[in-house]
Amino acid sequence: MSRNGEGSTERLGLDGKYRESQLPLLIRREGMAELVDGVVRILDRRELPHTIRHLECTTVEEVAVAIEVMAIQGASTLSFAAGYAMAMEAGSDDTDPRALSQRLTLARDRLLSTRPTGIALRRMVDSVFDVAVHSAGTNPGAAAAAYVEESAQLLARQALATGRYALELLDGAGTILTHCFADRALLYLLLEAEQAGREIHVYASETRPFLQGARLTSMSVQEIGHPVTLITDGMGGFLMTRGLIDAFVTAADRVCLDGTICNKIGTYQYAVCAAANEIPYIVLRQNGPDVESRSAADIEIEYRDAHEVLYCGGRRMAPEGVTALYPAFDITPPHLIHRIVTDRGAFASQAIESYFATPAD
Amino acid sequence: MSRNGEGSTERLGLDGKYRESQLPLLIRREGMAELVDGVVRILDRRELPHTIRHLECTTVEEVAVAIEVMAIQGASTLSFAAGYAMAMEAGSDDTDPRALSQRLTLARDRLLSTRPTGIALRRMVDSVFDVAVHSAGTNPGAAAAAYVEESAQLLARQALATGRYALELLDGAGTILTHCFADRALLYLLLEAEQAGREIHVYASETRPFLQGARLTSMSVQEIGHPVTLITDGMGGFLMTRGLIDAFVTAADRVCLDGTICNKIGTYQYAVCAAANEIPYIVLRQNGPDVESRSAADIEIEYRDAHEVLYCGGRRMAPEGVTALYPAFDITPPHLIHRIVTDRGAFASQAIESYFATPAD
Repeated sequence: MSRNGEGSTERLGLDGKYRESQLPLLIRREGMAELVDGVVRILDRRELPHTIRHLECTTVEEVAVAIEVMAIQGASTLSFAAGYAMAMEAGSDDTDPRALSQRLTLARDRLLSTRPTGIALRRMVDSVFDVAVHSAGTNPGAAAAAYVEESAQLLARQALATGRYALELLDGAGTILTHCFADRALLYLLLEAEQAGREIHVYASETRPFLQGARLTSMSVQEIGHPVTLITDGMGGFLMTRGLIDAFVTAADRVCLDGTICNKIGTYQYAVCAAANEIPYIVLRQNGPDVESRSAADIEIEYRDAHEVLYCGGRRMAPEGVTALYPAFDITPPHLIHRIVTDRGAFASQAIESYFATPAD
Repeated sequence: MSRNGEGSTERLGLDGKYRESQLPLLIRREGMAELVDGVVRILDRRELPHTIRHLECTTVEEVAVAIEVMAIQGASTLSFAAGYAMAMEAGSDDTDPRALSQRLTLARDRLLSTRPTGIALRRMVDSVFDVAVHSAGTNPGAAAAAYVEESAQLLARQALATGRYALELLDGAGTILTHCFADRALLYLLLEAEQAGREIHVYASETRPFLQGARLTSMSVQEIGHPVTLITDGMGGFLMTRGLIDAFVTAADRVCLDGTICNKIGTYQYAVCAAANEIPYIVLRQNGPDVESRSAADIEIEYRDAHEVLYCGGRRMAPEGVTALYPAFDITPPHLIHRIVTDRGAFASQAIESYFATPAD
């Protein structure tokens, strides 16, 4: 995890500004998914922060399972893995257009079945399908892979812009509370703060049961060099009452046109407490709202295997016979959100639809 | 964990109504602390629900450590262990009154240093000290032990009465959310419901890092026979928004005269969410408010070793170098509390001081 960034020949990160070695692992290409020699190479996040190990997926099924078991996670990040799985499939031997279309339809359906709540996955596999099928005569696999790389670059540039706007908005804030792993937009915010010589103390909520906060967020903040303090998911509200939190900041898996957002389970509780304590809740959403989602009614909450709640660190905690519930996301209404920050600036939640009428930088 | 309760010669539980075998383990004498043949015998709750093992403490220091490491927990329950430790010390060889007083002063100071937030501990060790020292000439150890047993019986009878009042108050409620281990008042509520043929579905919040909800609450509810569903500490608010929770019910480690309560970290967040969703928050406090505490300013929040937050199920989750924070309790203001239920009935939080002017049954 060296960040020295020596040597000008080193590859630039997806954002086009930072070199790969300057970035925390999870927003480097190798920290997400890549297509290397016809194999989808995925960093297995389940082993973090202790072990850096990659899965080498040679079939769409293997990628789908990696997404289902959360070896890779984050709505956009997992969509790259799915996109490369489609590209891998498109690049395999059979170049007959009809057979290609049939294979890619099966691949798309399998990949869409993995995780229902985020919308980036559907956009990615639908787009890659079209790119591959309409690149008849040329190399559909290469065209598809190039599309995924371009999408990842666009998203990183948008996240960098979002991070800058969020840093402006957080002028004067020295501490933030975050929940789950807010990914590239938060990490660019922290990278830009570090470049500006501004320290931001991050309180990371551990985010049971998968512990993205303990494992991914705390690792990434530490790599960038800001102080990070881990808490459990029951502690954020108390810290707010003690004046320790200047802002609550998360990503969002879905942003509806009415300003409702959907994010990792536990977000809603903190949003309610932030409002009760007059602390701004800032949502980072680099590419604006989802045109497919007018309101909360358009969001399907994913329920995952309750097994993960009954176990903690590999040990079963509840007695045999006790059941559990595991909604993976919750929904926060617009009145609890101070600003939704995008690559086009910060919007009041209820005005997020005006994102589309706002020019990009 | 048999609950058949056959045989009329069997010992009655502390409450005087249920036989020991009808009670869930954690409110039987053997599930808390006992003084047996001059040894303080403590059920080690850290091993639950998988292993039922008792610590045999022969010194005050051993009991103090058992309290510190949370082998025994719960403000009242751990006070019994401390009380028996004082009785053990009072019953040891040296019957010279001055030497006894000196020994008990040391024991009291050591026991008071274990956990600062709950007030039952101070009351117990101060009272046992007085009983032992003033029983000059008779057997100070026996007098002290009898005092602890009587205190435990009184508390159990108060908890039974509180459970009955709470059941009345929850008329029509089919589901409750609880946090941490609400102990005897909640368990008597559920026992009385079961006797009345009423099913209450308990959603138990796991309560990281010690997981009292996953390990103690779910076990006890299962023993009584009601359905129990485990969730993580980030999920309760979401369940409230989905109409799954009729009431939020907890115990309290401290109840101030102004209606402020102090309970396990995570309680405040749920109280805020309950208010936002118009769900009543019911606090069970069998013996009324604490005269020692006028308001939140009189409460000392215990900060425990951050190690427990960095680990989950025995495995370290955050990278080396990441720090954590572990406030063990939080504070909920009176306006978020619908009722505080006691052995003398249910009180509006702001009127809890009138408990003292209300006759016991």
